Amino acid sequence: MKIGILTSGGDCAGLNAVMRAIGLYIYRNIKNAEIVGFQNGYVGLIKGECKPLRKEDFEGLLDAGGTMLGTNRTPFKQMTVPEEDGITRLDKMCANYKKLGLDCLFTLGGAGTHRTAALLCAEGCNVIGLPKTIDNDIYGTDFTFGFHTAVDVAAEAIERVRTTADSHGRTILVEVMGNKAGWLTLYAGIAGGADAILLPEIPFNIDKVCECVRNTYRAGKRSCIIAVAEGAIVDAEAPYKKKERAFVRVDRGETTVTAHLAEVIGEQTGFETRSTVLGYIQRGGSPSAYDKVFCTRLGSYAGRLAAEGRFGVTVAVCGNKITFNALADIAGRYKLVDPAAEIVAAAEGIGICLGR
Amino acid sequence: MKIGILTSGGDCAGLNAVMRAIGLYIYRNIKNAEIVGFQNGYVGLIKGECKPLRKEDFEGLLDAGGTMLGTNRTPFKQMTVPEEDGITRLDKMCANYKKLGLDCLFTLGGAGTHRTAALLCAEGCNVIGLPKTIDNDIYGTDFTFGFHTAVDVAAEAIERVRTTADSHGRTILVEVMGNKAGWLTLYAGIAGGADAILLPEIPFNIDKVCECVRNTYRAGKRSCIIAVAEGAIVDAEAPYKKKERAFVRVDRGETTVTAHLAEVIGEQTGFETRSTVLGYIQRGGSPSAYDKVFCTRLGSYAGRLAAEGRFGVTVAVCGNKITFNALADIAGRYKLVDPAAEIVAAAEGIGICLGR
Amino acid sequence: MKIGILTSGGDCAGLNAVMRAIGLYIYRNIKNAEIVGFQNGYVGLIKGECKPLRKEDFEGLLDAGGTMLGTNRTPFKQMTVPEEDGITRLDKMCANYKKLGLDCLFTLGGAGTHRTAALLCAEGCNVIGLPKTIDNDIYGTDFTFGFHTAVDVAAEAIERVRTTADSHGRTILVEVMGNKAGWLTLYAGIAGGADAILLPEIPFNIDKVCECVRNTYRAGKRSCIIAVAEGAIVDAEAPYKKKERAFVRVDRGETTVTAHLAEVIGEQTGFETRSTVLGYIQRGGSPSAYDKVFCTRLGSYAGRLAAEGRFGVTVAVCGNKITFNALADIAGRYKLVDPAAEIVAAAEGIGICLGR
Amino acid sequence: MKIGILTSGGDCAGLNAVMRAIGLYIYRNIKNAEIVGFQNGYVGLIKGECKPLRKEDFEGLLDAGGTMLGTNRTPFKQMTVPEEDGITRLDKMCANYKKLGLDCLFTLGGAGTHRTAALLCAEGCNVIGLPKTIDNDIYGTDFTFGFHTAVDVAAEAIERVRTTADSHGRTILVEVMGNKAGWLTLYAGIAGGADAILLPEIPFNIDKVCECVRNTYRAGKRSCIIAVAEGAIVDAEAPYKKKERAFVRVDRGETTVTAHLAEVIGEQTGFETRSTVLGYIQRGGSPSAYDKVFCTRLGSYAGRLAAEGRFGVTVAVCGNKITFNALADIAGRYKLVDPAAEIVAAAEGIGICLGR
Repeated sequence: MKIGILTSGGDCAGLNAVMRAIGLYIYRNIKNAEIVGFQNGYVGLIKGECKPLRKEDFEGLLDAGGTMLGTNRTPFKQMTVPEEDGITRLDKMCANYKKLGLDCLFTLGGAGTHRTAALLCAEGCNVIGLPKTIDNDIYGTDFTFGFHTAVDVAAEAIERVRTTADSHGRTILVEVMGNKAGWLTLYAGIAGGADAILLPEIPFNIDKVCECVRNTYRAGKRSCIIAVAEGAIVDAEAPYKKKERAFVRVDRGETTVTAHLAEVIGEQTGFETRSTVLGYIQRGGSPSAYDKVFCTRLGSYAGRLAAEGRFGVTVAVCGNKITFNALADIAGRYKLVDPAAEIVAAAEGIGICLGR
Repeated sequence: MKIGILTSGGDCAGLNAVMRAIGLYIYRNIKNAEIVGFQNGYVGLIKGECKPLRKEDFEGLLDAGGTMLGTNRTPFKQMTVPEEDGITRLDKMCANYKKLGLDCLFTLGGAGTHRTAALLCAEGCNVIGLPKTIDNDIYGTDFTFGFHTAVDVAAEAIERVRTTADSHGRTILVEVMGNKAGWLTLYAGIAGGADAILLPEIPFNIDKVCECVRNTYRAGKRSCIIAVAEGAIVDAEAPYKKKERAFVRVDRGETTVTAHLAEVIGEQTGFETRSTVLGYIQRGGSPSAYDKVFCTRLGSYAGRLAAEGRFGVTVAVCGNKITFNALADIAGRYKLVDPAAEIVAAAEGIGICLGR
Repeated sequence: MKIGILTSGGDCAGLNAVMRAIGLYIYRNIKNAEIVGFQNGYVGLIKGECKPLRKEDFEGLLDAGGTMLGTNRTPFKQMTVPEEDGITRLDKMCANYKKLGLDCLFTLGGAGTHRTAALLCAEGCNVIGLPKTIDNDIYGTDFTFGFHTAVDVAAEAIERVRTTADSHGRTILVEVMGNKAGWLTLYAGIAGGADAILLPEIPFNIDKVCECVRNTYRAGKRSCIIAVAEGAIVDAEAPYKKKERAFVRVDRGETTVTAHLAEVIGEQTGFETRSTVLGYIQRGGSPSAYDKVFCTRLGSYAGRLAAEGRFGVTVAVCGNKITFNALADIAGRYKLVDPAAEIVAAAEGIGICLGR
Repeated sequence: MKIGILTSGGDCAGLNAVMRAIGLYIYRNIKNAEIVGFQNGYVGLIKGECKPLRKEDFEGLLDAGGTMLGTNRTPFKQMTVPEEDGITRLDKMCANYKKLGLDCLFTLGGAGTHRTAALLCAEGCNVIGLPKTIDNDIYGTDFTFGFHTAVDVAAEAIERVRTTADSHGRTILVEVMGNKAGWLTLYAGIAGGADAILLPEIPFNIDKVCECVRNTYRAGKRSCIIAVAEGAIVDAEAPYKKKERAFVRVDRGETTVTAHLAEVIGEQTGFETRSTVLGYIQRGGSPSAYDKVFCTRLGSYAGRLAAEGRFGVTVAVCGNKITFNALADIAGRYKLVDPAAEIVAAAEGIGICLGR
C-alpha cells in the first residue's frame, strides 16, 4: 500500500503530531506500507515532487511545531504553477497520484484544503482529510487541531496585557486572528478575562461597546480589555456606520480595524485607549497537551480508516468521539459561532459584552 | 434568593474560576440574590459557619489556583465532627440549610462530594453539583474541570523526564495520580510521548512491559518512559504475581508500586531503571485556558439552573454541550477508562504498550 | 519612621515583587514604621494623594504582575498637573513630602524616574531608587528588574514565529521593544535563535542584512528570523539611505520601521518576507523566577539602606552583588549596548548577523 | 585543528546549547577544523569511541533538552571499564587523545568532571571545561549553566504546591535537589514564596522551624511552605538530634529526610503536614531564555579560547563578564552558599526562616 501525505494552508501547532500518529499507525498496522511526503502542500503534488518517509522520520515529531513537509497558503485557484495546454492543476495532481501509484492520500489542512481534497475525490483519488486550523471553522467537527494551542497562546497574551492596562488605567484592544470565524477570539477572550469580545459573527454596536467600557470602570476595575477578532464586523444599524469607510482593512503593517476602533473608543469614552495585534505568535510553536492527545487520536484513527479502505472522508471529533464525515458533505461549508450558542450565553451571562 | 457555595474534596485548578462564574451570573441575573460561602467543604455546613460573598469577592478569581473557601479531603463518614444525641452530620447540614434560609446550595467536588450532595437532595435541600477532579472519574460527564490542567502539568513533567532519560540511556517510570481511574495517566502519557502506560483499569503483565522496554531500545531509542498510574494493577495471571505482596501501597513517603516496579523492570531488562513520583504539583496552580473557558461555561450554566429553579442535578459536559444529570443518577458511580475505548486503541495503534 | 513608595514610568514585571520585599523588610526590621503608597507615580506625590499600606498589603505580591499603586508614563515635564502661581511641580512634591512627614521615599522606575528622583534629592528629600525597566538601560547596574522576564516573553515569541516561518519558507522580522537601548532585542534574539539582530546601537547596512538572509537559505535553513529593535538605526553610509524618509516612525498602529524594512528585504532578496510587532505582551505578566529572586534581593537591600539612613542612592546589581549608586551620578545617563562587548562578539562569533 | 567534545555527569538544560555555540564558533572561525563527539562522557574517551560532528549537527540544538552525546553519572573512580595490565583509565584517555590526534578537548560537566579534566591537563591534554550543573556549586563562577532553568522549574512547582496547601490549610515540605550545595533550594524557595528554606550549608534547628510554622499561621496565612534541600542538615545542638538516626537517607523510593521531617513538624505543630519530592523534573527539559543566552556566550567564548590556544582552563561568569579560571585552581573545590551572604540576608530580612 503506497500512501501520500501533504500539509496545506497556514501552519498551526499539531501538524507534525498528526503526521507522527498516521505514520506510526500505518507502519505498525499495514503490511508493506510505503509513505511519501509532498513538499509545500498541493504544490508538491502538482509538481509530482515527493520524498519517502520512513518510520524513523515520524519519531520525535509529537512536540515539534510547524510541519516537516512545509506548507503553502496560496489558495488553490491562485497558484502560480501554470496551467498549460489545457491541463489543469487538478488534472496534474490526479495524474501524479496515479503515476506514483498511490493508494491513498492524507491531506492535513483547513477549509480550502478540504475543498480541493473533495475535488480530488471526485476524480477518483482516495483521500482522507484531517481538520487543521487555529480558526476552528471546519464544518462537521467540534474542534480542529491547533485551535486549543492557539487559545492558550492568545489567552496568555490577553492576561499579560491586563497587567499593563491595570497599571496604567487603560483600555486595551487585543486583536486576535480570525476573519470569518470568531472561535479563537471567543475562547481566548473568555479565558483571558476580557471585558468585551467582538466577533465576525455578531455585528457590534459601537455605543454598546463604549457603554461597556464606562461600566467596567464604574464597577471599580482599573482597566478594560477588549478582545477583537480580525474580522469583527460593525453593526450596520449603529451610529458608527458613518465612519465605516475608516474600517477598511489595509495591508500588512498598516492601520487595522482594531487600531482605528481604539481611537474611536478612546474619544467616545475619554479613557486612554490602546491596541495591540497578537499576530504570528498565535500560529506557531509546539502543540499543547490537549492538542497532542487530540492529534494522536485523529492520526491514529485516520490510519485505521486507510487500513479499512474507507476514503473520501475527513476525520472529526463529535462530542468526545472521533468519527468522520464525507468530504463531499463538508467541502465549501464553514462552522461559525452561533450567536445563540450556549458558550455565547455563558459569556454574556457573567457580564462579558459582545457588543449587541 | 439566598444561595450557599462550598468546595469539597482534594483541590484542583478551576475551583475559583467556577465560583467566579456562578457568582457573577447570579448577581447579574437574579434579583435580590445573596450568596454565602461555607469554609472547608461540608464541615462548614455541618457547623453552620459561613461568610457573605459579595459580587466583588468573585472578581479576579479566574486565574487564581486553589479555592478561596478552603476544602477538606476527609471522607464524609470519617469526619471528626461528632454526632451527638443521635443527630447525624446529615441532620445538622439540613438543619443549617434551613436555619440559614438557603434556597439553593452549590457543591463543587468529586465523586464523594456528589454522593453527599445526593443525600442532601433526598432530605429536601436544593443542591446543584459541579464536577471537579483531576481524576476525570465522575459519571455522566465527558470531562471534569481541573482535569485538563493536570494533564498539562503531568505531560510537561513526563517530557522533561524524557530528556534526562535520553541523556543517560535510562528507563524511567513516572508515577501519575489516579487510584481508581487512569484518565490522567492515559492523557498525560500520550501527550508526554510515553512508551508505555499502566492504568488501574487495564491489569498489566510485567513480561509485556519488559518486552516493550526491550523493543523500545531495539528500535533505536535512547530511553524508555513508562507512565504509571498510582493505582495501576498487576495482572493476576502474570508470572509477576508471585511478588504481588511487594506491590502493597504503603504510606506517604514510603515505597510505592512504581518504585518497586522500577526495580523489577531494571532487573529483568538489564537497563538502568529509575522512578519518580509527580506528587502534589499535579493538583495546584492556575487553570489552563481550556479549563478557564470550561469553568466559565459550567458556572454560568449552573447559575442559570438556579435561576430556573432546577435542582437536584449536577452540571456536565456531553460532547461539546453543557448539560446536567440528576444527582440521584450519578451518585456512587464512577467513570473509568474503558479498555476498549477509541483513545486506548489510538494509543495502542501507534505502538504505546498498555501492558496487555 | 514614615516611608513613601511610588512606581513610575511604563509598567514591567516585578514592581509588586520589589514593593513586597521593601514592605516586608521594613515592617520586620524598623520599629514604628509606617508606609504610604502614592497612586500613579509622581502625580500622586504632586497631588499629595496617598494611602496607608499595612504589612498585609504587601503579602501575596510576589507573583502579581503590574503595580498595585498604578503608574504613569507621562514624562515629568509634560505632566498635565498645572504649575500655578510659580509653584513648580517639584516644589509641590517637596512640599507634600514634608507635609506628610516622610522620612524616606522609594521610587521604582526607569531612567526618567531616576532623573526626577535626583531632583527631589537635591531639594533635600531622602530618596532611594530601584531600577525598573524592560529596556535594561539604567546606568550603573548590570541588570534592571523586569528585563529578564521580558526576555523570556520575547524569546518565546521569536521561537513561535520560527516554526511558522519554517513551515512557509519565509523571512520574518520580529519587532521587539527598545528605542534607545537594544538589550532586550539582543538577549531575546540570541535566546530565540534569530539569524540577524538589529539594534539602535549598531547602525545596520541593509545590504549586509540581505546578504545574511540569502546566506541563511543557502546554508539549508527553511526560514530566516530577524529580531529588530523598535529603534534600530539604518547605517547612514549604506545605499539604503536614499529611502531613509520611509523609515520615519509613525504613530501607534501605523507603519513601522520593521514593516517597511520587511518590504525592502523581501524585494531585494526575492524571499517572501513578513513582519510582526510583539507589542504590549512584552511588558506585563508575572515576573520570572529570576526576577522574583532579583526583586526580593533589591527590595530587601533597599529596605536595609533605609534602616541605615543611606539616602540619595539607587540600588544596583554589579556582578552578582547587590550594591548602590548615588542618584546624582547616574541621573540622565543611559547604559547602552557596547558594539564591542563580549555578548555582541559571542553573537557574531556563531554567525548571527548584526548588520555591520 | 581536531577537536573533541564530551558531556559528563548528571544531565541539565543547556548542554546542547553550549555545544551548538562551540561548534558554530569553531566551524566559522577556525580553518580546517574537525570536531568529534565522545559518547557517554569520559567512557567514550576511555574506549576511544567517537563520531564526527559536522556543522549541521550543531544547528537546531539551542532549544533541545538533554545532551546529544549522552552522558554518564558514574564517578570516574567507580567506572566499570576495567583497568588492565596496569593501564589506568587516565592512561587510556590520554592515549586515545593522542591516537585520535586531538588538539583540544571540551569537557562539559560539574565538579567531578572538572576534577578529571584537571588530571587530563596534567598529563598534557589541551582541555577547556564548561561549567554545567543545576547545583551551581562549581568554584570560581557566579553561575553554572542549567542552574537558572532548574530554578524556574522548581519555583513553579513550589508555587503550584502553595495553592494546594492553601486550599487544605496544610504545611507542605517540598524537597529540592542539592546534596552539598543549597543554591537551587535557596533560589527556588525565594522565587516560589516559601516560608522557610532549609539548606545543607546552614544546619537547622527543628524548634526554630516549628516556630516559623506556627508564626506563619498566626500571621493569617492559610498554609506554610518549606523548601528543603536534599542534603539539608540537622543542627547538632538542637533537641531534634536525638532522632538523628531517623534522618538517614535511604535508597531511591524509600523514606527521605523530608518525609520524616514532615512527620516531626506535623506532630510538633499540630498542623496537617505533608511532603513531596520534586525529583527528575528539575534536571530535564529545554533551557530557559536566560540559559540560552548564557550557554551561547559560554560556548562562543570557549571556542575563542580554543582558537587562541588557551587551554587548561574552564569558562566562568564573574559579574556580568565571561572569563576563565585555570582548571588546576578550581579542581576539587566547591562553591557553597555562604551563610553570611547578601542573598541569605535578603531572605531572612523579609522573614523567611532558614532554621537558625
